[in-house]
Amino acid sequence: MNDFHYELIAEDPETGARAGVLHTPHGKIETPIFMPVGTQATVKTLDQHDLIEAQVQIILGNAYHLYLRPGHELIDRMGGLHQFMNWSRPILTDSGGFQVFSLGDLNKISEEGVRFQSHLDGSSHLFTPESVMEIEHGLGADIIMAFDECTPYPCERDYAEKSMRMTLRWAERCIKRHQELSAQRTHRPPQALFGIVQGSIYPDLRRTCAQELIQMDLPGYAIGGLAVGEPRDSMFGMIRETTPLLPNSKPRYLMGVGLPNDLVEAVGAGVDMFDCVVPTRNARNGTVFTRNGRLRLKNAGHAEDPQPLESDCACKTCSHYSRAYLRHLFKTNEVLGMHLATFHNVFFFQRLMRDMRDAIISGHFAAWQADFFALYQDS
Amino acid sequence: MNDFHYELIAEDPETGARAGVLHTPHGKIETPIFMPVGTQATVKTLDQHDLIEAQVQIILGNAYHLYLRPGHELIDRMGGLHQFMNWSRPILTDSGGFQVFSLGDLNKISEEGVRFQSHLDGSSHLFTPESVMEIEHGLGADIIMAFDECTPYPCERDYAEKSMRMTLRWAERCIKRHQELSAQRTHRPPQALFGIVQGSIYPDLRRTCAQELIQMDLPGYAIGGLAVGEPRDSMFGMIRETTPLLPNSKPRYLMGVGLPNDLVEAVGAGVDMFDCVVPTRNARNGTVFTRNGRLRLKNAGHAEDPQPLESDCACKTCSHYSRAYLRHLFKTNEVLGMHLATFHNVFFFQRLMRDMRDAIISGHFAAWQADFFALYQDS
Repeated sequence: MNDFHYELIAEDPETGARAGVLHTPHGKIETPIFMPVGTQATVKTLDQHDLIEAQVQIILGNAYHLYLRPGHELIDRMGGLHQFMNWSRPILTDSGGFQVFSLGDLNKISEEGVRFQSHLDGSSHLFTPESVMEIEHGLGADIIMAFDECTPYPCERDYAEKSMRMTLRWAERCIKRHQELSAQRTHRPPQALFGIVQGSIYPDLRRTCAQELIQMDLPGYAIGGLAVGEPRDSMFGMIRETTPLLPNSKPRYLMGVGLPNDLVEAVGAGVDMFDCVVPTRNARNGTVFTRNGRLRLKNAGHAEDPQPLESDCACKTCSHYSRAYLRHLFKTNEVLGMHLATFHNVFFFQRLMRDMRDAIISGHFAAWQADFFALYQDS
Repeated sequence: MNDFHYELIAEDPETGARAGVLHTPHGKIETPIFMPVGTQATVKTLDQHDLIEAQVQIILGNAYHLYLRPGHELIDRMGGLHQFMNWSRPILTDSGGFQVFSLGDLNKISEEGVRFQSHLDGSSHLFTPESVMEIEHGLGADIIMAFDECTPYPCERDYAEKSMRMTLRWAERCIKRHQELSAQRTHRPPQALFGIVQGSIYPDLRRTCAQELIQMDLPGYAIGGLAVGEPRDSMFGMIRETTPLLPNSKPRYLMGVGLPNDLVEAVGAGVDMFDCVVPTRNARNGTVFTRNGRLRLKNAGHAEDPQPLESDCACKTCSHYSRAYLRHLFKTNEVLGMHLATFHNVFFFQRLMRDMRDAIISGHFAAWQADFFALYQDS
């Protein structure tokens, strides 16, 4: 873990917002950061040059999908995920915990792990904390996530507590296997294992989980099990309960969030890292984000609109194409429409994070945040 | 038509191959040239920067598709097809003649024109030589094609002759309407109208049609109605029957062809211009072209192959990605696979044409052609 550390650059005096630098074996990441999701070793519709042009610093890969296709062992033989997909900047892989619960129809959870059926062919598979560490080592991401149980919403307190306790025991097992594998696999760059705070919407369970994980002295901590259907207030209640407990010297990652307004609020609550399919999935459905909110490209009102998606956006889509052309591409189901909308959304999210970082460093994040919410209308 | 002319640069002494420059209001085209097909105002999966990076000099748009969606009048109001799709290099539009016969299920041909049903919603439409000229003027391509009847294969001699005679009468009507529209629409760059030689596989009909069209003194001539199912020998028989009749000072365009070996043979027969969906459609199915022939990316043999598609190819796909990664993208139905394969194929076709042009200019095309056929195996 020598290569991996978090450097705190600035804290906003009025909110809990932080700006920092995350050092990894594949380079630096300026935080707060949004990680586009590259589920199957590709951020859908973008090539790796596009990602660099959109100023993406780190992407997320999904252990569950890559385990099923093409297989982590194949990726390992091809030199790891960075080399396989030709992406030389940092990568984070999730543990598959979320997917085995949401995609695998019939799953069976036990202390050992989770037995689930592949969403592709129904074949049966077992994920344990140990096997997930083997998968994530095969993939070779800079940051790997511990295997956890992501509880659904709503979740009874009794179940949430038992699950959180098991997630803590699984974290210990992940650490042990991760250390063994790290000692064996010295030909590959070191990987940083993050723990995941669970506890559903119960503040005391969140606190307990965070405190126990901190005892394990991991290089970073995630807040999981949120954005799964609970009210927005509950989500931010849990975030504000958790971040003050986490060490100032470690990065904080809110998993699966989210919408621009959620990112802006969560950065104010002291979160450093995010991932979500929001920018990419919305783009493929013809919905793009602007400073004023969402814009639906299939709407008839755009049919003859010569304007770009956003007049002050420097992305390649806004520099070259009109709303009228983009609408035509979506109405005719042309792949180029999905590509150009995805590029804009990914660029927009990166710029949003950079703007927040600049505001934190220059000491006026609270005012920036108020300006953002005055302009941005989510629908 | 002041801006439009063909400049003959070199003729191969052993074959009929020609190298030239086609001057248009949107710039020069070096011939022989292959035009990627951009049916719906997009060369599928590529943005306009990709086309320039792949050294594409001219693209083809389909009048039939653009008439249906978004409509030529909308494109006209948006400043024409170049501006609508942000492509500043030359464009050629076909006349819809091929599509109304192949896509419109129920079509009714008369001297007036063709009544057909939209492949989208079954609505009824009438294309006449005059209405097609209005559509192509609305689109504003540099080169526009006359409305013709593309006869199917096989085709009785009697039908082929009557049809060819009607195509000639339609050409006269196209010229008349084209001249009227050109006089009215002086705010737009001039457009060059090409005639189309028909006559099925009957040499004397082809000769008659060519001779009659030449009398009309058009700026370029196409050979149509081939590659519709006839044997390859018949196709080349018709090409070799026609090209010697066409004026040396005008470009010759073989419509809807084709495969790399067909391009190499047809250039040797004196053809200057080509279009076909072969590179783009094959790419989307996971088939790429190399100097040795086709390569099917879904084949299991590529699963762990770290090689690029072609070791000596300078395209972005070959420069950055392995066959193993491309195969993975196709096996997981990722759009990026289609994009990267399309880029390679379009680049490959452009390089193939450039190589032929260089060989013609340097006077060793026949030897180049023999080398090509020795290496290239189509399957």
